[in-house]
Amino acid sequence: MLGADVDAIAGLLVLRERHPLTVYAPDSVLAVLAANAIFGVLDPALVQRVKVAPHEPVLCAAGLRLTLLPMPGKVPLYQESYGAAEAEPGPNFAALVEANGRCMIVAPACAEITEPVRAHLAKADAVFFDGTMFTDDEMITAGLGAKTSRRMGHVPLSGPDGTLSRLGSLPGRRILLHINNSNPILMPGSPERLQVEAAGFEVAHDGMEVTL
Amino acid sequence: MLGADVDAIAGLLVLRERHPLTVYAPDSVLAVLAANAIFGVLDPALVQRVKVAPHEPVLCAAGLRLTLLPMPGKVPLYQESYGAAEAEPGPNFAALVEANGRCMIVAPACAEITEPVRAHLAKADAVFFDGTMFTDDEMITAGLGAKTSRRMGHVPLSGPDGTLSRLGSLPGRRILLHINNSNPILMPGSPERLQVEAAGFEVAHDGMEVTL
Repeated sequence: MLGADVDAIAGLLVLRERHPLTVYAPDSVLAVLAANAIFGVLDPALVQRVKVAPHEPVLCAAGLRLTLLPMPGKVPLYQESYGAAEAEPGPNFAALVEANGRCMIVAPACAEITEPVRAHLAKADAVFFDGTMFTDDEMITAGLGAKTSRRMGHVPLSGPDGTLSRLGSLPGRRILLHINNSNPILMPGSPERLQVEAAGFEVAHDGMEVTL
Repeated sequence: MLGADVDAIAGLLVLRERHPLTVYAPDSVLAVLAANAIFGVLDPALVQRVKVAPHEPVLCAAGLRLTLLPMPGKVPLYQESYGAAEAEPGPNFAALVEANGRCMIVAPACAEITEPVRAHLAKADAVFFDGTMFTDDEMITAGLGAKTSRRMGHVPLSGPDGTLSRLGSLPGRRILLHINNSNPILMPGSPERLQVEAAGFEVAHDGMEVTL
């Protein structure tokens, strides 16, 4: 668990059918699970909750080494002050996963690609990165909502500080995920999709397999 | 909302994308929504929560009249005492929906078909009823779990006090839903499916349309 937004944690509720599993999560997410009694459907006899501190690797199943990297982000939507105009900073993480001398980083939400963030991402053989929106105001322009991409805690792909510009020269594979249905890169052949591909990014799809 | 189990309320979390809607629910369910902050993703400016008292009709959208009927049931799984051997009684409801002089009852969970329950069901043009399990011990026999159907708050279809026997002579259509994946009536042509059909019950399926 990298954050406590609904799309990150609600899936736990469909894993309640008595399958043993382990939840690795930062303090902030475990606190949300504890505060919302509905997650008690995960029987503690079968589902272990393991607290992971930022930057401190833990050994998981199948020899995977997991490290949580703090990312610029905001509080989950349901913890926001009602009607807040600006994103309210809050805990948010990427997962650095290492095995057999290779490593990948999964960062489905990143509000800003700071220098420390970029430095981390540059070390990975593959980066699965926040591709939520192409332009900052795409929801507004399409009449789908009142919030910008940045207000929602996601750096847009385009623009001078956007992902294409900031991560265009990373050495590893760059694969975009967490793509909103307003984002034109979902359409093969769209100008935005071509621009993303020309910049060396891949667009994740259901069933995608990546070999490192 | 007829109960507060995960399968009844977690769907609200996927309705969070700023669609206006109204949640009609008994006190017990609204209390769970209030106590689990994650349901705050439903913006109160768009999603109204309306408390419905048992047996007191409310007028909903499109002229539908909704009445909640108390049903024998148990507390949601995550409110159970850990390791409880018996089902712990708790609030649970069926929905009586009326329009144009016709009425249906939706009862996805019913622990026991008491005389008052049967009397209510007998008045409906169609009853959508708890078809969770065929035999009380079907999960145990199949090695899928340690609980009986009754322990989970669901009267089984077979047996002397089962649904086929108790509701076999109802005048309206009887359509089974909430069918567990261990229940052989899901397999067309199985002996149990034939038995259910011979008793005048239908098995609900995705996309089913019912005209009253």
